[in-house]
Order: sequence, then C-alpha cells, then structure tokens
Amino acid sequence: MLNILFHDKLLLDRRTFRFINNLIEADTFGELKVPVDKYYGAQTVRSTMNFKIGGPSERMPIQVIKAFGILKRAAAEVNKDYGLDPRLADAIVQAADEVAAGKLDDHFPLVVWQTGSGTQSNMNVNEVISNRAIEILGGKLGSKDPVHPNDHVNKSQSSNDTFPTAMHIAAAKEVHEVLLPGLQHLHDALHAKAVEFKDIIKIGRTHTQDAVPLSLGQEFGGYVQQVKYSIERVKTAMPRIYELAAGGTAVGTGLNTRIGFAEKVAATVASLTGLPFVTAPNKFEALAAHDALVELSGALNTVAVSMMKIANDIRFLGSGPRSGLGELCLPENEPGSSIMPGKVNPTQCEAMTMVAAQVMGNNVAVTIGGSNGHFELNVFKPMMIKNVLNSARLLGDASVSFTDNCVVGIEANIDRINKLMNESLMLVTALNPHIGYDKAAKIAKTAHKEGGNLKETAIKLGYLTAEEFDAWVKPHEMLGPK
Amino acid sequence: MLNILFHDKLLLDRRTFRFINNLIEADTFGELKVPVDKYYGAQTVRSTMNFKIGGPSERMPIQVIKAFGILKRAAAEVNKDYGLDPRLADAIVQAADEVAAGKLDDHFPLVVWQTGSGTQSNMNVNEVISNRAIEILGGKLGSKDPVHPNDHVNKSQSSNDTFPTAMHIAAAKEVHEVLLPGLQHLHDALHAKAVEFKDIIKIGRTHTQDAVPLSLGQEFGGYVQQVKYSIERVKTAMPRIYELAAGGTAVGTGLNTRIGFAEKVAATVASLTGLPFVTAPNKFEALAAHDALVELSGALNTVAVSMMKIANDIRFLGSGPRSGLGELCLPENEPGSSIMPGKVNPTQCEAMTMVAAQVMGNNVAVTIGGSNGHFELNVFKPMMIKNVLNSARLLGDASVSFTDNCVVGIEANIDRINKLMNESLMLVTALNPHIGYDKAAKIAKTAHKEGGNLKETAIKLGYLTAEEFDAWVKPHEMLGPK
Amino acid sequence: MLNILFHDKLLLDRRTFRFINNLIEADTFGELKVPVDKYYGAQTVRSTMNFKIGGPSERMPIQVIKAFGILKRAAAEVNKDYGLDPRLADAIVQAADEVAAGKLDDHFPLVVWQTGSGTQSNMNVNEVISNRAIEILGGKLGSKDPVHPNDHVNKSQSSNDTFPTAMHIAAAKEVHEVLLPGLQHLHDALHAKAVEFKDIIKIGRTHTQDAVPLSLGQEFGGYVQQVKYSIERVKTAMPRIYELAAGGTAVGTGLNTRIGFAEKVAATVASLTGLPFVTAPNKFEALAAHDALVELSGALNTVAVSMMKIANDIRFLGSGPRSGLGELCLPENEPGSSIMPGKVNPTQCEAMTMVAAQVMGNNVAVTIGGSNGHFELNVFKPMMIKNVLNSARLLGDASVSFTDNCVVGIEANIDRINKLMNESLMLVTALNPHIGYDKAAKIAKTAHKEGGNLKETAIKLGYLTAEEFDAWVKPHEMLGPK
Amino acid sequence: MLNILFHDKLLLDRRTFRFINNLIEADTFGELKVPVDKYYGAQTVRSTMNFKIGGPSERMPIQVIKAFGILKRAAAEVNKDYGLDPRLADAIVQAADEVAAGKLDDHFPLVVWQTGSGTQSNMNVNEVISNRAIEILGGKLGSKDPVHPNDHVNKSQSSNDTFPTAMHIAAAKEVHEVLLPGLQHLHDALHAKAVEFKDIIKIGRTHTQDAVPLSLGQEFGGYVQQVKYSIERVKTAMPRIYELAAGGTAVGTGLNTRIGFAEKVAATVASLTGLPFVTAPNKFEALAAHDALVELSGALNTVAVSMMKIANDIRFLGSGPRSGLGELCLPENEPGSSIMPGKVNPTQCEAMTMVAAQVMGNNVAVTIGGSNGHFELNVFKPMMIKNVLNSARLLGDASVSFTDNCVVGIEANIDRINKLMNESLMLVTALNPHIGYDKAAKIAKTAHKEGGNLKETAIKLGYLTAEEFDAWVKPHEMLGPK
Repeated sequence: MLNILFHDKLLLDRRTFRFINNLIEADTFGELKVPVDKYYGAQTVRSTMNFKIGGPSERMPIQVIKAFGILKRAAAEVNKDYGLDPRLADAIVQAADEVAAGKLDDHFPLVVWQTGSGTQSNMNVNEVISNRAIEILGGKLGSKDPVHPNDHVNKSQSSNDTFPTAMHIAAAKEVHEVLLPGLQHLHDALHAKAVEFKDIIKIGRTHTQDAVPLSLGQEFGGYVQQVKYSIERVKTAMPRIYELAAGGTAVGTGLNTRIGFAEKVAATVASLTGLPFVTAPNKFEALAAHDALVELSGALNTVAVSMMKIANDIRFLGSGPRSGLGELCLPENEPGSSIMPGKVNPTQCEAMTMVAAQVMGNNVAVTIGGSNGHFELNVFKPMMIKNVLNSARLLGDASVSFTDNCVVGIEANIDRINKLMNESLMLVTALNPHIGYDKAAKIAKTAHKEGGNLKETAIKLGYLTAEEFDAWVKPHEMLGPK
Repeated sequence: MLNILFHDKLLLDRRTFRFINNLIEADTFGELKVPVDKYYGAQTVRSTMNFKIGGPSERMPIQVIKAFGILKRAAAEVNKDYGLDPRLADAIVQAADEVAAGKLDDHFPLVVWQTGSGTQSNMNVNEVISNRAIEILGGKLGSKDPVHPNDHVNKSQSSNDTFPTAMHIAAAKEVHEVLLPGLQHLHDALHAKAVEFKDIIKIGRTHTQDAVPLSLGQEFGGYVQQVKYSIERVKTAMPRIYELAAGGTAVGTGLNTRIGFAEKVAATVASLTGLPFVTAPNKFEALAAHDALVELSGALNTVAVSMMKIANDIRFLGSGPRSGLGELCLPENEPGSSIMPGKVNPTQCEAMTMVAAQVMGNNVAVTIGGSNGHFELNVFKPMMIKNVLNSARLLGDASVSFTDNCVVGIEANIDRINKLMNESLMLVTALNPHIGYDKAAKIAKTAHKEGGNLKETAIKLGYLTAEEFDAWVKPHEMLGPK
Repeated sequence: MLNILFHDKLLLDRRTFRFINNLIEADTFGELKVPVDKYYGAQTVRSTMNFKIGGPSERMPIQVIKAFGILKRAAAEVNKDYGLDPRLADAIVQAADEVAAGKLDDHFPLVVWQTGSGTQSNMNVNEVISNRAIEILGGKLGSKDPVHPNDHVNKSQSSNDTFPTAMHIAAAKEVHEVLLPGLQHLHDALHAKAVEFKDIIKIGRTHTQDAVPLSLGQEFGGYVQQVKYSIERVKTAMPRIYELAAGGTAVGTGLNTRIGFAEKVAATVASLTGLPFVTAPNKFEALAAHDALVELSGALNTVAVSMMKIANDIRFLGSGPRSGLGELCLPENEPGSSIMPGKVNPTQCEAMTMVAAQVMGNNVAVTIGGSNGHFELNVFKPMMIKNVLNSARLLGDASVSFTDNCVVGIEANIDRINKLMNESLMLVTALNPHIGYDKAAKIAKTAHKEGGNLKETAIKLGYLTAEEFDAWVKPHEMLGPK
Repeated sequence: MLNILFHDKLLLDRRTFRFINNLIEADTFGELKVPVDKYYGAQTVRSTMNFKIGGPSERMPIQVIKAFGILKRAAAEVNKDYGLDPRLADAIVQAADEVAAGKLDDHFPLVVWQTGSGTQSNMNVNEVISNRAIEILGGKLGSKDPVHPNDHVNKSQSSNDTFPTAMHIAAAKEVHEVLLPGLQHLHDALHAKAVEFKDIIKIGRTHTQDAVPLSLGQEFGGYVQQVKYSIERVKTAMPRIYELAAGGTAVGTGLNTRIGFAEKVAATVASLTGLPFVTAPNKFEALAAHDALVELSGALNTVAVSMMKIANDIRFLGSGPRSGLGELCLPENEPGSSIMPGKVNPTQCEAMTMVAAQVMGNNVAVTIGGSNGHFELNVFKPMMIKNVLNSARLLGDASVSFTDNCVVGIEANIDRINKLMNESLMLVTALNPHIGYDKAAKIAKTAHKEGGNLKETAIKLGYLTAEEFDAWVKPHEMLGPK
C-alpha cells in the first residue's frame, strides 16, 4: 500500500524528518495528520477518519492486537530462516513482542467497524511494528527505512491470511486463559458443594411443582455435570481453532510465500503460545469461511444455556427470605436495602444470566456474519472475532465472579429444607407397597384438602400407626433405584 | 412456461384427452406423470420431484394458497374491466373463490423449500384455477383451453409480485382472524382477574426476593398492560402489511400491466377481505425486500416476550402445592399424578412458553431471510411467510388455550397470600416515620435472625405497643403514593 | 394417572365393554369421547381438547413417536428380565415394534404445544401400545387388562426420563439416517467437481472484487472442506446425544427402578438401533437440561452457515447468463421463463439458503428453550426436539436435493472464465520481480484508466516485449507458494 | 444502604476527614478503599470488587449515566416543589447537570455486568451527585452531609423505577440525536442518487439472474423507500419509550412518593430534553417488563435488515473492476492494494453489513433479557439498554459513514450499464406484440446459443429489419405499466 503522510507544520519534534520524508510520499489521497506520539501511520489515521462508528468502546479487541504481535514475531522468525536480513528480523521480533506483551496498546485506535477483512488493523500493526523497529534500529519514524511495514513486517503475508490467524490465536488464548480456567473454577466449587450437600434430602420440583425427593448434592451434581460438559464442549471446538490460515496470503493459494512457510509459522506460533496450533489443511476454507469461529461460538452458546439454568435455579432456591423457596442461603455481598434486612439480592446470578443472554445474542451475530462470506474472503471478520472474544471473556469472568462471590458461600437452609420435605405430600409414595395405592391416595388427598400432614392424616384415617409410618416413610431410601 | 405432461398409459379416465394432448406439448424436460385426480399440472409435479425436502409438514402454508385465491379472483375481476373475456374471467373468479374457501386444499402439494420466489406455488395456483375453470366451462383438463394458466389466470401478474401480495394478504388475515382475537381474549380475561383481585394485598417480589406489598390486582394489571400493548404493537406493524405488491410484475416496473391495475387490484382485495389494503407506493421495495414482514415478525417477537413473562409468573406464583410460592391456584386440566394429589402441572404455561421460544426463533429466521435479498428480488419469500404465519397462529391459538384452560380458572390462595404477607419483614418500612429508621431496622434484623414476626419482635424490644403496631402497619396503605 | 373415559352411547361396537368399564373409572374431569377406531385413550383425547394450538402441521414429530416405540420395546425386554410376565412383555414388544415401524402413525394426534415434559405424548404411546397389546392378547380395548398403560408399558419409567430418551434416539437416528448421508452425498459431489475443475484457472474475488487467481478446483476445494468439517462437527456433538436418560424416572434418582435397569435399557436401545447409546452418567442433568440438544443444534447451525456460503457462491458464480459473473453453468431444472431463454433460476440454491436461515432460527428457539429449564425438569422438551429434528431433516434433504439437482450438473463456463482471467489487471503482480513494482503499477493503472489489457499496455509503455510478457505472466504459476 | 469506607492511612489529602468519618460508619462488610480523586463512594467501589467482568469496554454506557443526570435533576426540582430544602435541591440540580453534561464521566467505573436492576449504577450516580453537591455547598466529601445520596439525591425514587427511566431517556436521546439524523442523512443521499440516476436504464436482476430492465433511479428508489420506512419504524416504536417509570419506586406502587410526583418528573424530563416524555400509565409493567425496549430493538433489527440489503446490493453492483457486475463506481477511500490498481474494496459496505449483523445479534440478546423478567422486576436491565444503545449508535454512525464515504460518491458506470443492457436477451420481450411469442423465443434462444446479440440474430433469422428492431425494442418504454 502506498503511504500518504502530510503533517501540520506546527508538529515539529523528534519525528520531524518523518513528516518531511512523508511529504514526498504523498499521493492523491491528500493530506493526513499523524499524531507525533504514536507509532502508527497514515493508513491507521485514514481509517479513523473514514470509520467514525461507535466510539472507543468499539475498538478492535486488544486480544487481536496481541495475537498479531505473536504472529508478526513468528513470521519474522520464519522470514529470517528464508533470508530476511537478521538485523531487521530481530528488530521486528522485539517490536512484535512488545505488541504481544501489551506495551503498545495505545497505538491501536481502530474500531471493529472498518473493512471486513481487518486489513486496516493489520496495517495498523505493520505500521506500529515497523516504526518501533525503526526506532530500535536508530532510524527515523515514518521513514519505512530500514523496516518497511509491508515489505518486511508483512512479508509473505496478506491481511487476508493474517487477520484470520490472529483471530484464531486470540480466540484460543482467551479460551485457555480466561474461559476454561473460569469454568474449571466454577466446576470445582459446585462439585465441592455437591459433596458437602450429599446427605441433605430435599423435595424435588418438576414443572416448578412439588415432586419426589432427591438430595441437594444430587441437585448440585446436575450443575456439576453441566459445567463439566461445558468444558468438554469448548474443548471439542478447539481443534479447528488451532488451524491457522497463515501462508494462504491473498486468496488461499499462498502466492508470494515459500513452500514450508505456512507450516513453520504455525509451529512457531505453537511454540510461542504453548498451544497446539497447526497450519490449516485448506487455506481457501480458512479465508473464505470462519465456520470454526461459528462452531466455537455455538459451544459458548451452549455454555451460556447451562449457566442460565444454573444461575436461575440458584436464585430461585435462594429466594425469600420468607416468601420464596428459601432452601439456599446465598452470600450477602452488598449492603442490603436499609429498610429490608435479610434481603439478599442474587446479584451474581443476575450478572451471570445477563452474560448468558449476551452470549446467545453474540452467537446470532457470529452466525450471520459467518454465513455471509462471499467467494474467496469472508468480510465479517472483525465483528465475528469481537463477539467470540466477548462471549469467552464474559463467560470466563462471570464464572469466576459467580463462583467466588456466590457459589462458595452458598449454605443450605436445613430447617427450611426439612420443613418442606416433611410437609410434602409426595412421600406418600412410600406407602404404596404397604397399604396399597388407593389408601395412600386417600391419605394424600385428605391431607391436601385439609392442609394436614401425611402422618397425622394417615393415623387419623386409621390406615396405620405412627410407628409404621416412621418405619415405612424414609425419604433417604427414595434417592435411587433398588 | 411450456407445459410437459406425459402420463402412464394405464391412467385412462375422463382426463385421457389431456394426456394425449399434453403428449404433444412435451419438451426437453422429459416425461412427467400427473395424478389424474388433481387439478394441478406439470410445473407442480416437477416441483415435487425437484424439491423433496422436509415432507408433508413442510407444505406451503394453506393460508398462502387461500390468499392466492383472493388475489387471483381480484386480478380476474380487474382484468375483466380491462378487457378479459367475461366468460373466462367469471370462471376464474369461481375457481379462485373455491381456492380461497379451502375447497381445493388437496391440490397444493408443494413444500416451502422450493424456489425462493414462490414461483412454483404461484404456478400451482394458476394450474389449479385454470383446470378448475376449464372444468366449469366444460373443457378438457390440461388443455389450457379456454383458460390458460399463464395468459389468463396469471394475466398482468408475475410470481414476483403475486407471491408477495399473497404473503401480505395471508399475514393480515392471520393477524386479524387468529392473533388479535386471541390476544384480546387473553387481555379481557386477565383484566377480569385484575378487577377480581384488586383488593387482595400480597407481598411483592423483586430480584425474586421479598419486597414491599402490592395488590394481586396490580400485579395482574401489569400483565393486562403487556397484552394491551401487544395488541398495539401488532397493529402498528400492519399499515405496511396492507401495502400490496400486485402490479409490480417482474421487477417492480409494472411491465405488461395497465395503468391503474395495481390500484384496482388492491381495492378489490380490500373489498373482498374487509381489510384496508392499498397498492404499495414503491413496487421495487415491495419485491426486493420484505421488511414489512420482518417488522411484523418483530412485533410478534415482542408479543412472545410478553407472553413468556406472564406465563412464567403465573406458573411460579402457582407453584406448590406445598413447597412453592403457592399464591395462585391454577385450574387442574389433566389427571394429576396417581401418586401425588394436588400436583397441578402448569401445562398451559408450558405450552405458551414453548410457543414464545418458537416465535423468537422464527423471528431470527425471518430476519436472516429478509436481510439476504439481492437486487430486484428477495428469494426467501416462502420461508419468511411460513415463519410469520406460524408465529401469528401459535401466539393466537396459545392465547386462547391459555386463557380458557388457565387464566379464567385462576384463583387466589388467600390464606397463603395473607400468611406470606403477614410474615413479611418488609412491612417494617411503615414504622420508619414513627420510631425512626434505626429502631425499625433493629426490629427487622432481630425478627429475621430469630425467625420471629415483626409485631412480637417490636413489642419484645419495647419499641411500641401492640395497638401502635396495628395502627401503624397497614399494608393496604402501602399500595400507592400519598 | 387416573383414566376417565365416558363415551357416546351411540358408539357401540367391539369396544363397547371398554366404555362401560371406563364409566366406572370416571372422575371429576368429566366425560370424554374416545374415537372407536383409535388405540389411544382418554389422556390423549383430553390433550387434543386442551391444546388446540397450531393444527395438524404442528404434530409431535413422528420420529419421536417411533423412537418411543424403540424405547418401550427395550424397556419391556428389560422389565421381562426383572420379572414382568413374559406374555405381557412379549405383547408390548410386538406393539412397540409396530409403533417403531410407523404402522400406527395415525394414532398419535397430539401437537408439540402441550405440556413441556411431553407427558401427554408418553401417555399417548402408553395408551396405544397397551391397547394394541391387549388386542394381540385377545383382550378388550380400553380395559387396561391385561396390559396396563402405566403399570406395564410405562413400568420403571416416567415421562420425565422417557421423553428425553426418545428425543435422543430420534435425534441420533435422524442424524444418521438423513443428515449425515445427505452431507456425505454433497461432499462427494463437490469433491468430484473440485477434481474435475482442478486445472481451470480463474480470477479470485475478495471483498467481492477482483483479486489474484486460483483454480476453480481450489475454490470448490474450499467448499469440500466446509462440508467435510460439517460432518465432523455433527459427529463431535453426538457422544452426548448417545447418553440416554432412561432409568432416571421422575427427578433423576431412579426411584421405582431397579439397579441395572438404566444400563440394560441403553444397551438394548443400542442393539436395536445399531447406534452406540449408553446410559447418561448423570440423570439429573439429563432431565433438567437438554444441553446436548443445544450443542447438536449449534452444530447444525454451523452446518447451515457453511451451506449458506456455498449456495450463495454457486448462485453468484452462476449468475447471468449475460449480466452476471457467469463462470458456472447451473443445470436447468424447471421450464425457464417463456420470454427469457437461458434464464436459469438457481432454485436449488434458494431452497438451500432458505433452509439455512430456518436452521439458524431453529437454533435460537432451541437455545431459548434449553436455557429456561427449572429445577429437576426442563419443560421445553417437545419444542426443542421439534426444532432439532426439523433442522437435521431439512439440512439432510436439502443437501441431497442440492447435490442431485444442482451440484452434479454444474459445468464450468470455460470461455467466460478465461475471458475474465485474461482481462484481469491482477496478473500484473507477476511482473514485479522482473520490472519492479513501480513500472508494474504504472501498467496496471494505465490499463485500468484506458480500459486496455495488460499486455498491450505494457508493450505500449515500452516496459517489455510481447514475448517477455508471455514468459513472465503465467497464471498457472500463481496458484501456490514456491 | 449503609456506607462503609475504610482507607489507606497513606491517602491523606483534602478528603482525609471523609475517611475518618467513614471509619465510624464501617459495618460488617469490612474495609473498603475509595480513590481520593473520585466522587463515588463505597457502594460503587464494592461493585467494582464484586463484578470483575469484562473490563473497561464493558462499562455502563455513558448515555445511561447522562440520562440519570437529567432524571436526578428533574427529581430534585420536583422534590423541591414538594418541600426539599431549596439549598440542597439547587446543589443537586447543579451536580446533576454536570453529570448530564458529561463533565464527570470518569466517576462512573461500573460495568454492565452487575446487579440486573442497575441498582449499583443508580447508587454510583447518587454518590457522585451527593459528593459533588456537598463540595458545591462547602461540605466534606463522603460525609453525606448536607446532601445524602439516598435521602436527598434518591428522594422519592428507587433503583427499580429510576434505572428504567434512565434507560428510556437514554434510548430516546440516542434515537433522536444519532440514529434518526443518521438515517435521514442516508435517506437524503440515496434520494439524491435516485433522482440523479432516474434516466439510466439498466438490466434488472431477479434470482441474481438477468431480468427485464428498470432504471437505476428506480433501483435506488427502492433503497430510498427502505430507509424512509426505517425512519417510520423507529418512530412508531417511540411512544412507548417516552413512557417513564419514575414514580413507581420499589415495585410500581409508588410507595414513598407523593401524588403527582410521577407526572411532574416526566414533564420536567420532557422539558429538559425537548422530547415528549410522559409518565407510564402502568408502573408495574414499566418495572417488571421492558417490552418497549424489545419493541424498539425489533425496529432496529428491521432497520438492520434494510441496511444489509442496501449495502449488499451496492457492493455487488460495484464489484469489479473487470470481473464483477461493475455497474457502479464506488468512491476510493483507502489506498488500494499496491499491486492492484483500481481495486476498490467496498469497505463502507462491509462496515455497514457488520453493523447489521451485530444489531441482529443484539436484538436476540434484548429479546432473551426481556423475556426473563420475574414478578415485579426485570433484572436484565443493564444488558438490555447496553444492546439497544449499541444498536442505535452503530446504525446511526454507520449510516453517516456509509453516506459520506460511499453513497454520495457513487457514480454510474454508464458504459458498462449500457453494454449489459444492450447485450441482454431480455429485451426480446418487446418483440412479442409484433412478431409473436414463438419467433421472439426463437431469436432469444438462438442468440443465447450462439452468443450473438438480439438484433443481429433477429435480422439473420429474417424476422425483421434493423429499422424495425430499433423501432420496437426500446428499453425506456419497458419501465412502467401502459
């Protein structure tokens, strides 16, 4: 790309020469002012002018930028193997490392709502690394000398293969660094509760209505299984995320790369990240479609479904303190209302369920973007990765927050659980083998009608004695097959 | 279109001549067998062969076919004004009326998953009306003489403008005949309950937790408002549904129609249906986009959101009989479990919430279809109208079912409501003006900690007398501003 | 459940005794007329009365009914092992086989929009199998003797575990019998085309704009990869579909079953279907959540995304005949417009993309249903399985239709492809190493401005000779790395 | 709420007394450090500790904060009418104005993913206004004296009614200040193009295939209509957005407010904003449901559908430069590829279609949040408003960007349009009345087969003369009915 840099005459500083130099490079696109305290150049500035959409909160996710840092370093190393001047390569590696480490975050001002290939963010990265490398080598910023953003930083690369590569690196890292640890953390806490609660027998609820008993540990065990499977679901989506498009260049053919470049870059990225990245077996698919991100988003959507269920259950089981189900006591994290002591708002459940709804919406955005690629290039890339990263981050963070501020502090309200259990008409089931279905039903119906309990009603009806009732009605024997 | 009809030699019946005749018409598309007991012809049969997708449950909604009947009648009447042989026109009118009346439903075998313009269903209608009109006029089925499916039945029309017209007619009728009456029915029943329950004071719940009181009538009044607005929302989407594409023909220009045709057809359809149809002000938009259906679907989506809230509330308020909230008694519609008397599954709420979820999904399908039109024609038409009609029908039917089998039979469980009300710690709020916040809080906290009630606790703490408590704590004075 | 069967006095036939018998069983739910030509009983009839929602097209998918047939047979066999009277068990097995074989489809009139647990469909199945088994054993229909719908057909089962089991069996069978074969069929046809087209070099398109070349085989190779991964994605979702809830009974505890029942039922279902079903490791999760269906639906959603891309590309590449891209010739399946010869509407692409949109919508419905389960039971079951089955069926059927009626007949329009290829300005890239970037750019810019071709322009500018151009610009050497 | 503020001993500055004071207020929630340079207090800090979800980009939209500023000012004015000390009221008004003006944006650190009622953001606002008002009045920050965050700033209010009020104010302002002007801007530009292009006749495309002609002005006229209706759709959703919940307090009853408060606050907000806000007719609905936001989101979803269609058409019509449709020349905004002059990537179309996909996803998130409210309070508030504001902002901004950087610069490629037009076989339709359908078809078929043009083929076949062809085939007479 031709670089066009005009500059205010007033902006004279250490980068002065840059502006003078760039003056000469100017083309028909006209004058551009580049901030003197930034490493980026004209193409980045132009994008900020042409895409005033959404404001700072809509910036390209920094994870993508950092992933680019990793990729650019890997490419520089491989390019060095293939003959790139080691001095330049090493400077690029150093600059790219700084990008990957987040040291240059302020130099990436572009929003998601730019070109759908992410080209401008790739150029933003190229410009920043180029200028930073030039600085390292003692050159003049903006001079493209001795490190050219296109010829050297972007060597053997195209936006069309680097952006998808950065998407996959960013997604994989977010999954491994935020989402999976978060889910594991939640899993472990729920599992500990399931163990803690294993002997607490409570009434079950189906259709939201009273049903036969189970243990509170069994109930939490269901949640544990959901989170365990959440982790599995995310992991099963990863193999295709580990496939990198790098080496496909403009349309997937690998034009202008060298044989072996793709494989070496993937191996280097794998080495740098510790994740099992490989080169994509079909680069055409890897540029033209982002089904792998749709697949991952689908896994996140399923995780969100699980989270919604778990958080909903916990807030309902913890509802009250007096007019709800009240079987669980949730930790009190914020000052309760000044007039209503004991009111614990299940705020962590609320954050989690809002996150779940967002992830479900994000999944639709990703789906639509993924389905609308044309020919050799899908151009919904920035939108897609934004949503996938957002979903992964929110689910991971919310899992930790929910765990630490809610799950670990959940206590069983034993008195309430026992009371509901003992009042339950469902226990009558246990009498069937002893007095027959008809009498059992009569007991239950009478108790329901009169508001009495089963034992008193059974005795009053003369069907059995108190001793018999106690011997026959044992909720803890109703928790499994025989 | 050229008609190609070969037939089994064995199928000799009153339509024999048709097959012989059609033998001559055969073209390069090869042989086709047309069932002898059907009015449709080769193009319909060919579609059944080329689109074996989804089976009988995926047929083009019969409402679209009936709407086509109305449109074809209107077009025939207007064509008669513009010179179509009255004898043919009248026969077409009669046959079209039979289609509109549902007398020929068995003659429309095509599925939704055909060409995205719905051309094949338009031709199906043309074939059926043509043959039925031929029959009325004593001609030979399949002869296209004296009533030709294209030249006469489809005169001044194209699939590209007739299918959208039929979509709008069908949607408007479904809304007026099923959805709005259903919503009104639900509204009236909820309103009656709101009036019935106006003096029942109960505990409020925010964050699913105990909160300050309101009346059960106020709570139901919120639902009434939601349904009232549901009706409004659907109605505000209708003006653009009343706009008909007829007269736009192939690409919106109206090529091959006469000036005034579009307006007259719309007026005739309006007259036939009693609905305020008008000709679309811009036929290009009316063929190339179906934003009006997306808009209507959006209204249905919002209705679904309201229904989900209402049905969820009702099942939770009716949960129990002993271990739930238990404030409402829902009607018992099916045999309860043989072992659990009193277990009423809120099955109508379940049907309604499932419908709501389906409508939300349908809305996404409609949205995606609506967004993917290209150039002069959107080719997601059958899918879009299928989903809109499905949503309207399900919401309308479910509203009636939910009303008749649930809402009208809801009873307030006064004892339970009063018990929860009286036990509530929230009433302490009423003491603030009399004894100050601190003492009130102390009462509430103590009661919460010890499980006592407010009155006893207040007296025990020495802050007030029983008489004072009764004079100051009056829930019915907490139901509004002062 | 108590059975309540009143009947018209006029309906006197071989089932007369049934009515008299049932008269005695009548309870407060009042009188019910059961059709004499149906095997179902009162609970089924009552559901048809209470849930008049959506009409015949909204019936419980027949695949669920057939899956129930398999399950009921398996349960009967296992119950026989555990002591059920072999005579009864064998009759149940025979009747259940008939259900599984689709011989009794007319006896299942219930719609999806019923209770969210599917209880009424389970009872429908129990009633039909019971009566059919009674008939086999020479008993009186409706007598529940000697085969009781609850005590024998439903033995060791609950709706709460059988319906999820039937959902998983139905989903797995639809995937294996319709979806995967359909996708494989499409894969193979696309692969054959990729091989056929491997030497056809064409212009690439990125951002919908002209780009560097690739082969048509490479382009199709991208589609092949998408379909290959579609198959993988569906398969990776199956392990959790193979887990069956049977044995969990009412809330997941397995109350009223025997130890080993769950495992034996799963093994029997596996044997009957040839699919690797196992018992779910956690029955609480298997009843309360249907994340496995959400996961599968997510895979189907990703498949839909791939299909949308492929079908969109093919219709655009086949657009024309004169004013489109025109690189592909799609088979002509229906009579073209009578006035526009050569107009081939890409109707199979349209059906496929409509299906894709529907599947994406279905996925949202499944997601919402899956997220809204409460406590021990998700009550969006019928809606969820309806959508999953619909998605699997539509994708499978559409894949076959698209393959047979479109893909296999696609031909490359070589002349058009070559013409576009040769006119392309992109080939200038090949000159860079020989004459440098600046001169190459000058050639391209000049050619673009003047509308000339590269070769003529290059020569005219004096940068090279015709021989040199031919020697250096070789599109077939631009298809890969070097 | 009780305020709990501990502080580092090292943080000794002008706010020292605050910390000492707050030391005394500390309660069981433990110690909290409040930054000395911020106006917010303990509740805000606690929220940042308990909800570490998503990072800075996930902050509560600043529009909500500014809307709170308007609301708090209005409430203070009305409270003054009802007796609030004018000195305090005036200070609150001044501080609230600063919030509304965006002067205190740095003092609102909370993220969306907090309590679902937005209580913590309401308290954040109360704390900031309180402390700023205290400062204005010369008091000590953190002292709550003389302006208490709850007693004075939040007087007659609850989070439960203020947050929905702020949501509606923010949404209405974003719609009026960003979205509607953006859409109008786009409308006007498209309209100007439709007028500019009214005499350019071009080939139409249906099913992406060649069809009968229309004018480029007519084609753009369809887009104009879509945007015109977009504006209408948004406006029809607004009446229910103008309804404010303020005055409903905790559960909708208006407990602790004065009669007339609700109406006066709404009138004051209307006056401050110039928008027709009114008090919600039913406060229960206004707190428990946010159907109005779902409705607005549905309108935005429909707008997104329109935008996707328009932007897609424009990029396809502008595809090329040589191998696409090439009828439009889109403005070149960024440096084209250095090797491919003339390659104009339709980046504005890409940004717009990405925005459209995002809005569709946002709509699903809003739908799910809206449907999951329970009892007296929907607790998906922050998530819902975040998505609605995001959609409105993105659509508005993208409309302006798309207009200014693309639409206004679109030029018709007349040569290309004429070439495609003249080559089109569709024009043969005009010969039907003169030489009959059969001969016309013969001409077209022959031309298609041989690749010739209509005129030459017609003459060669001997059906007419060159003069007759020119007299009869006039595309400009095919643009409307006769």
